[in-house]
Amino acid sequence: MRRIPDMVITRMSIYSRVLSALMEKGIDIISSDELGKLANCSGTQVRKDLTYFGQFGTRGVGYNTSDLKSNITKILGMDKRWKVALVGVGNLGSAFLSHERFKKHGFDIVVSFDADKSKIGKIYNNVEIRNIAELKESINEFGVKIAIITVPAQFAQEVSDLLVESGIKAILNFAPTTLRVPEKVIIRNVDLSLELEALSFFLTHKRAYDSEFSFLYL
Amino acid sequence: MRRIPDMVITRMSIYSRVLSALMEKGIDIISSDELGKLANCSGTQVRKDLTYFGQFGTRGVGYNTSDLKSNITKILGMDKRWKVALVGVGNLGSAFLSHERFKKHGFDIVVSFDADKSKIGKIYNNVEIRNIAELKESINEFGVKIAIITVPAQFAQEVSDLLVESGIKAILNFAPTTLRVPEKVIIRNVDLSLELEALSFFLTHKRAYDSEFSFLYL
Repeated sequence: MRRIPDMVITRMSIYSRVLSALMEKGIDIISSDELGKLANCSGTQVRKDLTYFGQFGTRGVGYNTSDLKSNITKILGMDKRWKVALVGVGNLGSAFLSHERFKKHGFDIVVSFDADKSKIGKIYNNVEIRNIAELKESINEFGVKIAIITVPAQFAQEVSDLLVESGIKAILNFAPTTLRVPEKVIIRNVDLSLELEALSFFLTHKRAYDSEFSFLYL
Repeated sequence: MRRIPDMVITRMSIYSRVLSALMEKGIDIISSDELGKLANCSGTQVRKDLTYFGQFGTRGVGYNTSDLKSNITKILGMDKRWKVALVGVGNLGSAFLSHERFKKHGFDIVVSFDADKSKIGKIYNNVEIRNIAELKESINEFGVKIAIITVPAQFAQEVSDLLVESGIKAILNFAPTTLRVPEKVIIRNVDLSLELEALSFFLTHKRAYDSEFSFLYL
């Protein structure tokens, strides 16, 4: 398989959500242009992204929504549920323990860890908070492969090392620091300020646009 | 200005971070290929993205890191600080009130709102939690243009309407629901499960890859 850009994967998830919405509305067929429009990209982009994974749809007709959705589900590995461990039950961690979207999209947080004695042993939204000292055995016990890091920046590398040692294969890092992991481990660093910068960009250029065309509003 | 894809804006933010790191290391010049490598995309992509905004760098030499960084900062509208309001001081909201990255990248949460009487009037990380009933006056008082929604899904649309009415121009929505806003308002819906789906994809195909080449490990 060719090296596939991260952005392609993200768009595949978005196409999947758009297709679900279309199926709920009883729409059976969609063109790449229409799908692109709903996914906020071009039809060309849709077609190009899909060619990474095979041949879909019928030229001049479009895609069968249910077929394409089921193919994308398989491509993303979302035809099964994933068990997830969460490390760091602070504000962000607690928010994720009750985050409806994770469960809805097939991710079950099955165990969580913290170093704070006042939290250890408690159950939060059906998930036990265990002592971080028991991380390795617990990861093994649950057979978890994916972990979410929501500890403060200064502890994140240590936690990441411990996760890798315990057999975790993929990490979603929310600590505001860059983590080093062995090449065999997949890591995604989530930087929520990127989203705010996009807003800043659009606000800045919207203003320019508004003043340029302000006579329209006179 | 041509319609610029969202992904381009996100990559501009990432280039900016890479350039900062290079400047800290005392690196003055970088080629588009090297910059792409550090930003996890191709040199062609870097060059293509930058052409949306003008002519940068010197052919055969590369970009001056400090010049490019300062240009991107201006393009993103990050040459000033932005005031931000946050609505919903639950777990996720509280996490954001103390999120180091927002401040670091120029976003100051100056006021927050909740409907819970036990929270109203408290100060969290130097930010006052006000009654949501005072939202309109407060947004005006602080002159805020950007808001973050961290309320439960069922209240998000109502909150969004109230923000728009109060003059908010850009919204970052973390509630797991799609919000309707007038065209003049910019909205970004953050779906953190997309990140987990990317991990699922890479884990799924990594496994295929691992078994395909498993003889290498015998």
